[in-house]
Amino acid sequence: MSYDPENIFAKILRGEIPSEKLYEDDHTYVFMDIMPRADGHCLVIPKTPARNILDATPAQMAAVMETTQKMSHAVMAAFGAGGVTIQQFNEPAGGQEVYHLHFHVLPRHEGVSLRPPGKLEDREVLAANAQKIRDALAA
Amino acid sequence: MSYDPENIFAKILRGEIPSEKLYEDDHTYVFMDIMPRADGHCLVIPKTPARNILDATPAQMAAVMETTQKMSHAVMAAFGAGGVTIQQFNEPAGGQEVYHLHFHVLPRHEGVSLRPPGKLEDREVLAANAQKIRDALAA
Repeated sequence: MSYDPENIFAKILRGEIPSEKLYEDDHTYVFMDIMPRADGHCLVIPKTPARNILDATPAQMAAVMETTQKMSHAVMAAFGAGGVTIQQFNEPAGGQEVYHLHFHVLPRHEGVSLRPPGKLEDREVLAANAQKIRDALAA
Repeated sequence: MSYDPENIFAKILRGEIPSEKLYEDDHTYVFMDIMPRADGHCLVIPKTPARNILDATPAQMAAVMETTQKMSHAVMAAFGAGGVTIQQFNEPAGGQEVYHLHFHVLPRHEGVSLRPPGKLEDREVLAANAQKIRDALAA
């Protein structure tokens, strides 16, 4: 269960792969999930290596949670959502697919189910939704 | 969006309602979900009032995450699970049903889906599964 520095989120952090960036601070980075299960679905990650919750440090978890809270308010404002669902997957059996600690932030509307996983969103839709979230963060 | 001190987790914390307790420290309390979606499904809550992630303090979130990590290791050991899924719901639209901040810890086995929500578990099964987790914490 070691950390692989070639995972795609590590590449995103190093700028080797593009991402639709929403926010960053000294300890965390936030970007759009390219297969969103709801409009505004984004991912919060620490800037330092952690495979998942099983090996994360208290400082990494605290920083990621503070940013997750900030993003929860932002996506609710951006999409007029009534709530937010947080999901976090650990190891293949736990549903993890990229081995860098990440928290899913999913804006939710009453009576609207999450979309099935695995469908790539159009790049322009992602960009427009990202702008709504950046605007909400700036407001 | 205020905190209702009559929610059932507040009553559990005050000992007014029984719970199958797994762990507690100065800041957090852990008990079995009575409608488990996987064997060993448990809930981590802060001892102090917070409605959900939208109003939780950094200290509450940090404490709850440290205990969530501890419980993740414990339930994986107790049930021979390959991973763990964390879920956390906010407001009715986000799937929240009890308005005291809580994190779901779900032990997972490869290829085994979560059970549908809403089915009350037999009390003896819950007690036996709780003992496995307490044993793992003590090991």
